[in-house]
Amino acid sequence: MPGLLRKILPREDSFFALFTELAENVHAASGALVDLLTNFTDVPAKVERIKAYEHKADDLTHALITRLNQSFITPFDREDIHDLSTAIDDVLDLIDAAASRMLMYHVDRVRPGVAELASTLLAATEQVAAAVRMLEKRDHILNYCIEINRLENESDRLCRTLIAQLFDEEKDPVQIIKWKEIIEVIETAADKCEDVANVIESVTLKSS
Amino acid sequence: MPGLLRKILPREDSFFALFTELAENVHAASGALVDLLTNFTDVPAKVERIKAYEHKADDLTHALITRLNQSFITPFDREDIHDLSTAIDDVLDLIDAAASRMLMYHVDRVRPGVAELASTLLAATEQVAAAVRMLEKRDHILNYCIEINRLENESDRLCRTLIAQLFDEEKDPVQIIKWKEIIEVIETAADKCEDVANVIESVTLKSS
Amino acid sequence: MPGLLRKILPREDSFFALFTELAENVHAASGALVDLLTNFTDVPAKVERIKAYEHKADDLTHALITRLNQSFITPFDREDIHDLSTAIDDVLDLIDAAASRMLMYHVDRVRPGVAELASTLLAATEQVAAAVRMLEKRDHILNYCIEINRLENESDRLCRTLIAQLFDEEKDPVQIIKWKEIIEVIETAADKCEDVANVIESVTLKSS
Repeated sequence: MPGLLRKILPREDSFFALFTELAENVHAASGALVDLLTNFTDVPAKVERIKAYEHKADDLTHALITRLNQSFITPFDREDIHDLSTAIDDVLDLIDAAASRMLMYHVDRVRPGVAELASTLLAATEQVAAAVRMLEKRDHILNYCIEINRLENESDRLCRTLIAQLFDEEKDPVQIIKWKEIIEVIETAADKCEDVANVIESVTLKSS
Repeated sequence: MPGLLRKILPREDSFFALFTELAENVHAASGALVDLLTNFTDVPAKVERIKAYEHKADDLTHALITRLNQSFITPFDREDIHDLSTAIDDVLDLIDAAASRMLMYHVDRVRPGVAELASTLLAATEQVAAAVRMLEKRDHILNYCIEINRLENESDRLCRTLIAQLFDEEKDPVQIIKWKEIIEVIETAADKCEDVANVIESVTLKSS
Repeated sequence: MPGLLRKILPREDSFFALFTELAENVHAASGALVDLLTNFTDVPAKVERIKAYEHKADDLTHALITRLNQSFITPFDREDIHDLSTAIDDVLDLIDAAASRMLMYHVDRVRPGVAELASTLLAATEQVAAAVRMLEKRDHILNYCIEINRLENESDRLCRTLIAQLFDEEKDPVQIIKWKEIIEVIETAADKCEDVANVIESVTLKSS
């Protein structure tokens, strides 16, 4: 492309680069959440680390939206770009919300099954990162989306089991309130991964 | 229409047929919820029946979104088709969530007023099904929307009354947590019926 | 503009007038919420006053949506007009929800810090009203949006502190359930102010 045109036309590929960075950031944060819940030591430092990922994702989302609003040409629908960036950012907000409750609620030990729920989320964010990396080439992208849907269903079933167990086993209503919220926040993060998959599916089918 | 054009152009009418099937499915599920809460026997079988409606609705919604993404011409705005199908599907997800909590929370009797709340939802889904059936002809469709809004207000008032009564009458905090959630889930389903009405109103006014 | 054209073309400016009226209505309602929580007397009358603002906002939102659906030309994107009016209306629904819980939950005294949380919301709705007033001229509008984001972050931090204190200080689980909800409803209203700011930012950047 001649130099002038290069200057006039927006660098579309940077949308893909920003999306990839955002998705990999979310996947790193969900790995840090699994680590926090599995090895429940140095809690304040681990919570802080997840908060740092969240600030990074806010910056990346803001960069994406600003670029979107200033670009004349975009690699796919403006609305899909907006929906995709906010859905990925929502996953990270929920990961941060789950982590921060460990401090807010003075949690001293993690209930059985909750680390497994976070591991299901980690499997989902791995597929999200893989799908986003393929957004430009669109190879096998629908397979990632199918896998994300499967993991969300698994997360939903596990969430219902954990909440039923919580009510069966825990007699202290205050503990029920705290853990019901933590479990639901992690499951909602997996839900948002499904929203991400739906936008990616929509983008892929439109262009096929 | 000549045979060739018929083949090239998408069968737009199938959007209406799929929407009608989806809305009737939701209405059948809310009928099953009223039955569950009114005649609280054979609970696992009745909960399973509602879950089957939810799986059916997932398939119909997926068929709608796939058709949307592959169609060049659509009977109304792409975004409205997307919003309408997800709003109708959300109603059924919430009906399923309310039903499944009967088992998750080992409910042994239904609190007074909760079946009435579900009956208000049933009246709303009846109007939703009627409005969706009229989407193609658009006869009297705004009257259905007005009635859905009226029923949502009624549901909202009844929900606030039931929650105030719950806190007044129930001393066990665990029971309060369980029933507050069940009541709010049913009221949120009525809320989503209003979202459906808003999309239908928007579609109708744009084309008038 | 000649008389005939004036008749044919919609009066675009009335969108701005309706938005301004809606935003000022929300700001008045959050002022009434601060008053309710600071001077906790005549509670039923003050709750009723907030409910009246909510009914007014419903009418204004409905007028905006109807005008939107009937207008051929709009001052900015149809979707942004829709998103902006529903986001502003959501703020008021949440203010009303917080106020009405004072009666529903027979609150007899307001927990420390909750009036301060509402004051942060009031500061945010002041910026929302100022930004909306500037929508037509678009002077300094991004500064208002930055300030709304700053206030939402402040509200979020205060909310987390108040909920941590609630769990630390309050031993009655029923009181925890009630106050956790009231605090979260007020913080969600501040969240929705950020949604308003995001739409305004998007509108402003697109046209710059």
